[in-house]
Amino acid sequence: MSPSKVTEPHWEDVGAKKRASLEASLPKEWRVPSDLLPHESQTDVTTWAETSGWFTPEELSITNSTAAELLPKLASGELKSLDVTKAFCKRAVAAHQLTNCLSETCFERALATARARDEELARTGKPVGSLHGLPISLKDNFKLKGLDSTVGIAAHIDDPAEADSPLAQLLEAAGAVFYVKTNVPTAMMIAETVNNVFGRTVNPRNRLTTSGGSSGGESSLIVLRGSPLGVGSDIGGSLRIPAACAGLFTIRPSAGRFPVRGTRSGMPGQEAVLSVNGPLANTIEDVELYSKSLIGEKPWLHDPKCVPIPWREVELPKKLKIGIMWHDGMVRPTPPVARALREVKAKLEAAGHEFVEWDPVDQKEGNELLGRMFVADGGLTIKKELDRTGEPWRPEMEAYSVAKDLTTSEMWKLHLERSEFQGRYLDRWTKAGIDALLIPTIPFNTVRHGAFKHVGYTGVYNVLDYSATSFVTGLTVDKAVDQLNGYEPLGDICQAINEDYDAELMHGLPISLQLVAQRLEEEKVLAMTKHVLEVIA
Amino acid sequence: MSPSKVTEPHWEDVGAKKRASLEASLPKEWRVPSDLLPHESQTDVTTWAETSGWFTPEELSITNSTAAELLPKLASGELKSLDVTKAFCKRAVAAHQLTNCLSETCFERALATARARDEELARTGKPVGSLHGLPISLKDNFKLKGLDSTVGIAAHIDDPAEADSPLAQLLEAAGAVFYVKTNVPTAMMIAETVNNVFGRTVNPRNRLTTSGGSSGGESSLIVLRGSPLGVGSDIGGSLRIPAACAGLFTIRPSAGRFPVRGTRSGMPGQEAVLSVNGPLANTIEDVELYSKSLIGEKPWLHDPKCVPIPWREVELPKKLKIGIMWHDGMVRPTPPVARALREVKAKLEAAGHEFVEWDPVDQKEGNELLGRMFVADGGLTIKKELDRTGEPWRPEMEAYSVAKDLTTSEMWKLHLERSEFQGRYLDRWTKAGIDALLIPTIPFNTVRHGAFKHVGYTGVYNVLDYSATSFVTGLTVDKAVDQLNGYEPLGDICQAINEDYDAELMHGLPISLQLVAQRLEEEKVLAMTKHVLEVIA
Repeated sequence: MSPSKVTEPHWEDVGAKKRASLEASLPKEWRVPSDLLPHESQTDVTTWAETSGWFTPEELSITNSTAAELLPKLASGELKSLDVTKAFCKRAVAAHQLTNCLSETCFERALATARARDEELARTGKPVGSLHGLPISLKDNFKLKGLDSTVGIAAHIDDPAEADSPLAQLLEAAGAVFYVKTNVPTAMMIAETVNNVFGRTVNPRNRLTTSGGSSGGESSLIVLRGSPLGVGSDIGGSLRIPAACAGLFTIRPSAGRFPVRGTRSGMPGQEAVLSVNGPLANTIEDVELYSKSLIGEKPWLHDPKCVPIPWREVELPKKLKIGIMWHDGMVRPTPPVARALREVKAKLEAAGHEFVEWDPVDQKEGNELLGRMFVADGGLTIKKELDRTGEPWRPEMEAYSVAKDLTTSEMWKLHLERSEFQGRYLDRWTKAGIDALLIPTIPFNTVRHGAFKHVGYTGVYNVLDYSATSFVTGLTVDKAVDQLNGYEPLGDICQAINEDYDAELMHGLPISLQLVAQRLEEEKVLAMTKHVLEVIA
Repeated sequence: MSPSKVTEPHWEDVGAKKRASLEASLPKEWRVPSDLLPHESQTDVTTWAETSGWFTPEELSITNSTAAELLPKLASGELKSLDVTKAFCKRAVAAHQLTNCLSETCFERALATARARDEELARTGKPVGSLHGLPISLKDNFKLKGLDSTVGIAAHIDDPAEADSPLAQLLEAAGAVFYVKTNVPTAMMIAETVNNVFGRTVNPRNRLTTSGGSSGGESSLIVLRGSPLGVGSDIGGSLRIPAACAGLFTIRPSAGRFPVRGTRSGMPGQEAVLSVNGPLANTIEDVELYSKSLIGEKPWLHDPKCVPIPWREVELPKKLKIGIMWHDGMVRPTPPVARALREVKAKLEAAGHEFVEWDPVDQKEGNELLGRMFVADGGLTIKKELDRTGEPWRPEMEAYSVAKDLTTSEMWKLHLERSEFQGRYLDRWTKAGIDALLIPTIPFNTVRHGAFKHVGYTGVYNVLDYSATSFVTGLTVDKAVDQLNGYEPLGDICQAINEDYDAELMHGLPISLQLVAQRLEEEKVLAMTKHVLEVIA
């Protein structure tokens, strides 16, 4: 018996009903027959779509394309939005069956939107906008009229949105087609994707491992080409972590560049560290394409948190000055990540770029500030929602369950500490005159379910509100090379992470790195990332 | 006897010592002999400088000039920075004797800086920067090495700054010369300028009235031409209120445009509504000149709160669409302010601009949100400082003394209310498609000391973080015309303010209005204000 009186339905009952209703929303014609599905012992399911025979060659051709490849064809009418949408719907259903990545579907809306796009193009000869007819998947926290945004909390079940989030409105105005929303961890505050409503999303590259969190439904879906482009959010690494775990590209923009208004927050009203959102995609070009399209819709006219900065073309200096941080003073990256850092640096140096060592001296403080800001309300805001259906805290969220609700005067002191930290970091950056930092996104490739530790590599840049990409290096784990040798742990978590490193399990997985630029330098960090990719290709 | 134990010196003792030390810092050669000073019964002291014979014609010529007039002469060497600085020092001392407007002086630093500017120009043939050799006054909260920033609180006496505020560093890098800091109310949280350390600053246009707050030391000093250009700050109207009370020009920029780092805050760490700073000057051209110069110094490289938006030249639409709000639903403007609104509107309409009525429906909520955010810590942050010397709350700050310290989870709810308000206001603005709002800055010209009520006309735009100017219309109060007739009060405060209106006392005072643009539209609101001034000239 729960000690607190529960007046609403029990979390397990409503959760079961919700799962059944999601299941029932998957049309029979798109559901993979169980005998066609890979056995659950098959860990890598990324090749299943090609080999199963379930998809037509046309469906495969469409869904294997990037957004940049699809959009000109959609705009010219060479591809119908309806065909493209149907293909992604079908492949998204399969992705869900393989990884449990979806939270909501709106296939009827999708087909109606797609038809309207095709009709508009036929009638006017002109595409609706820069995203004409393109299906885009959304993380569960974005609102679509009539759909829930549970963010993995049972109390939010059966609370359908009355209107689309402004971000969705702007993307739709640019031509996008919405068809699915994707799974997240409870309140989006766990670095893996697991919650008490929809359960766990797994990594299609190795289903024993996590596709990261909190935008891990997106990362699994996009890797499986169930979506050409998806939108996630990031308050401590929730875009970059799933990008790195699954092997995708993303940008964590600074606050104010993309609209956040009217989305479900895990901690509504929390502002000491700002949640932002951004795209996840299979290429950096698609990440840029999305960013440019969205900013072209002038989000500042629709979200008071947005800054009126139009898209700025950048010309990079011929010689970039890049700070490199081999470890953050808390956790050494595992062997493959450390190797990727060395190899990428060597190639960039060979291409004429300059590197300086970036001292990790400030990282610990930044990481601790993030943790303190997350639990500043003593976890009460989340707890209130959990209590409504008697839902227990997930074990990953223990810090929230034991925290103390600060007073406002205490919170003001915490703000001051954070601002001083931001000032000190900026001073070092300005003095060093660097263009970017090259650092790990996470200290590993991914981990077995439940083993995720340390968001410090990403979270410090949330505290600082810097723009940052996570990019796939093209390197993969080689168990013959990436062995833990002569390792000196920096502490208990460092030791646990590195001793947990399993070269056998990780073998073949993509290795990602993070490129960090200053605040509100989205165009520059994307241009630098594209250049890095050209150099290391 | 105070009930709380006071371990540090008593506020009255340290305050008396501080006043004596300020007094002693005024060099004898610049102090006006008491027999030359106007009798205290003389309310308007704005003509004293010209008529007293205390200043040389050259000193008057220099100090009567605007920054825009002085700068080319300083840059060419036609005027020496040393002469200009000495003239403003001398006139600032007189202004202080007339209005009690200063809090700190650093005349030695000023003369040394001025000499260095002159030497640099002589040596290199080039000015140091866009503000070469220009004396600039600073509100007390800006830090200058070795000087206090008491912000009117006794506990901050004898706590000299270890370094200049980044804003001061950037202005100095552009060539500015610092020589005085100016008085503020306690913690800068009263709309008049009065505190327990330095006492009350009076309005040189009528010493029975206030020059506004919290940047009222600045406004008195600048009206008396003791400074060509001063920097104040604004969290609820603290730039615009003194500008309107004294008859000056100012801009309240959106947060992030000008640097705030390393300044003394009245409520350190309070972030729900952001304090900003900006210039006060005798012309709108000087306000623009300052803004452009400061942004040219790239403040975002030195303050993590600044946004990397360079100065943007704007081209205004030929026909502006302006919302006009005759009253804010709480307080009707007094007759002269109402007349100015009508007359300015008529002239702008005659010049081809379009007006739409702006419904005051949201103003009350915005005003209440501001009040709640100001006291969210239960006044504890200020109280802690007062208690250190046993200093009592000033009666104007009663709301702080009785407020409750919110928990962080309560504060998050307040953030949500504020964000929803911001969203609703933006939607109305975007839907109306207006370029600006024309509204009162304050509901009156100024008031007798102690009678200031209602900061709603300015404060709502702090909650919204919109860019706004206060500008002098060129109209003045005419007691023959500006009589209260057929007045229906909107409530008790409205009644009190309008019944308090004294046409005799206000006669001849300048009438100011406020022009509000969207967030981060500083260039546009300045360009629009300049255009309005041309039309109504």
